[in-house]
Amino acid sequence: MRITALAGGVGGARFLRGLLHHVRTSQPEPVELTVIGNTGDDITLFGLRVCPDIDTLLYTLGGGIHEGQGWGRADETHSLAGELAALGAEPQWFTLGDKDFATHVYRSQLLGRGMPLSAVTERLSARWGLGELGVTLLPMTDTPVETHVVVAGDGDGEQRAIHFQEWWVRHRAELPAERFVVAGLDRATPAPGVLEAIREADVVILPPSNPVVSIGIILGVPGVRDALRGTRAPVVGVSPLVGGRPVRGHADVCLRTIGVDETSAGVAGLYADFLDGWLVDEEDPMPDGRGLQVVRRPLLMSSVEAAADMAGAALDLGLRLRAERAPA
Amino acid sequence: MRITALAGGVGGARFLRGLLHHVRTSQPEPVELTVIGNTGDDITLFGLRVCPDIDTLLYTLGGGIHEGQGWGRADETHSLAGELAALGAEPQWFTLGDKDFATHVYRSQLLGRGMPLSAVTERLSARWGLGELGVTLLPMTDTPVETHVVVAGDGDGEQRAIHFQEWWVRHRAELPAERFVVAGLDRATPAPGVLEAIREADVVILPPSNPVVSIGIILGVPGVRDALRGTRAPVVGVSPLVGGRPVRGHADVCLRTIGVDETSAGVAGLYADFLDGWLVDEEDPMPDGRGLQVVRRPLLMSSVEAAADMAGAALDLGLRLRAERAPA
Repeated sequence: MRITALAGGVGGARFLRGLLHHVRTSQPEPVELTVIGNTGDDITLFGLRVCPDIDTLLYTLGGGIHEGQGWGRADETHSLAGELAALGAEPQWFTLGDKDFATHVYRSQLLGRGMPLSAVTERLSARWGLGELGVTLLPMTDTPVETHVVVAGDGDGEQRAIHFQEWWVRHRAELPAERFVVAGLDRATPAPGVLEAIREADVVILPPSNPVVSIGIILGVPGVRDALRGTRAPVVGVSPLVGGRPVRGHADVCLRTIGVDETSAGVAGLYADFLDGWLVDEEDPMPDGRGLQVVRRPLLMSSVEAAADMAGAALDLGLRLRAERAPA
Repeated sequence: MRITALAGGVGGARFLRGLLHHVRTSQPEPVELTVIGNTGDDITLFGLRVCPDIDTLLYTLGGGIHEGQGWGRADETHSLAGELAALGAEPQWFTLGDKDFATHVYRSQLLGRGMPLSAVTERLSARWGLGELGVTLLPMTDTPVETHVVVAGDGDGEQRAIHFQEWWVRHRAELPAERFVVAGLDRATPAPGVLEAIREADVVILPPSNPVVSIGIILGVPGVRDALRGTRAPVVGVSPLVGGRPVRGHADVCLRTIGVDETSAGVAGLYADFLDGWLVDEEDPMPDGRGLQVVRRPLLMSSVEAAADMAGAALDLGLRLRAERAPA
């Protein structure tokens, strides 16, 4: 069975780890999971290319994640960053541990030699044993893409654009955002295998990643949305909102910024042209409708098992929709 | 008083730290020390530019050196290198600690922006407080230069060239060397301030650095040798050999490779066209002669104080030669 998922960082990674756990414990059929990771968060820091979402996926699925943070490496040291601070190097608002730095040094070296990001990601995936888990991790594109946030200037009325990470990490999404601008997205092409993975999947899953700055960016890669509309696989999503708020992250702020209701219905509207099934929280007032099958259940990923239950419910919904569609 | 020194790595750095100690404790006149560092050892590892001699000078003079090793940082961790090894990144024979990596990341970032190595070195010098010590550290050149070693091939009779660091660190100078080739040296230009520092010095000192692959490389930068021949300052050197052998490093092997006697006389011969004073070990059979003033004394840098005594003797010799030269 081929499952394809679009994913951002922490939420997506935890959900997909749950999915693998569910599949391992409850799914008799072998599963191939292809994960299409958001690269709009990518940033060049200290001359090194950092791919926060891809790395969170690698570390979480590969067993190296810092469990408490949800990002970065477990048992991490911070000598290098301390020394960079002593050198006065900027920025100092983005935490990078020593082991994590190795990923960025290695990636930057290979990119510098002309290797595409997808090939670099394949190497990193091998280090984390993703192949043995049946997982193929693809960046959404090999084209460098960066999400920027247009914010009000420093009292002078002039707007300015800052990197998404600066807005998200440094300003904790508290700096009022006018809009998101994704540099490079219009000329990006899907990384090798991305469109095929969507077209040839048995089920496509959207984890509860940020619908604007994670899934929304992947959907903006030319060809991806068309592939989702055209795939014969049912597309099943998990709402990132519980009681109108994200469990983690700032999805509500992002939705407000693009003028969309901070509700599961609002998010589903962003996916309306291809979404077939939608998992929402048990208290969610989201109504069924217009060909969208809504399923209610608790949406808290408080443990790997809880995430596995949630992912299992999404997969079951997808498989049910697929069975209903199958030619008689 | 302006002192200019040419220097390689560990030996040169320890000698110059001794010189600063001597000046601080025994020299009434304020001293400006300009150090011209060898960059022939420089190597690009994991896409980062590493300048081993410059870094050893920075760390030693700035108080951050790993005292036991003579290179690298004190209180160092090695998380990044361990992770690079887990990724299968090569080479693994060059030890880089996490704090040390910060220097290379920072330098590479600035070089990548087009900043010349001399300006980068100025920034690094500021972090290590060299200005407060009266020290200006200059790379010999801003032109990328790399010393390669021509060695016999793997049994096939073919020669091959390997980077100096691979020969020195990985093979501990045990792989028979045919010759040294310094890529880029013929088109290198001295870094800003290098020729002026030699021409306008009161005393020029050659520490007991390797005469072939450290001082010899600096002398190969077009213009440097002429400046040494032309300066009105006496040029005083310290023999790197005690009992025909280097106290540290592989100067004897390097001398054999270029066909020069492994003696203080042999080394002095390499400097014959500009050397005025020569400090040799107390047992050294080196004779006086042809305008070269030879002074004997113990040449072991067993402590900062011993290095200070040795450096003080070299400086005294230089000042004496300068006084003798002064117009009546």
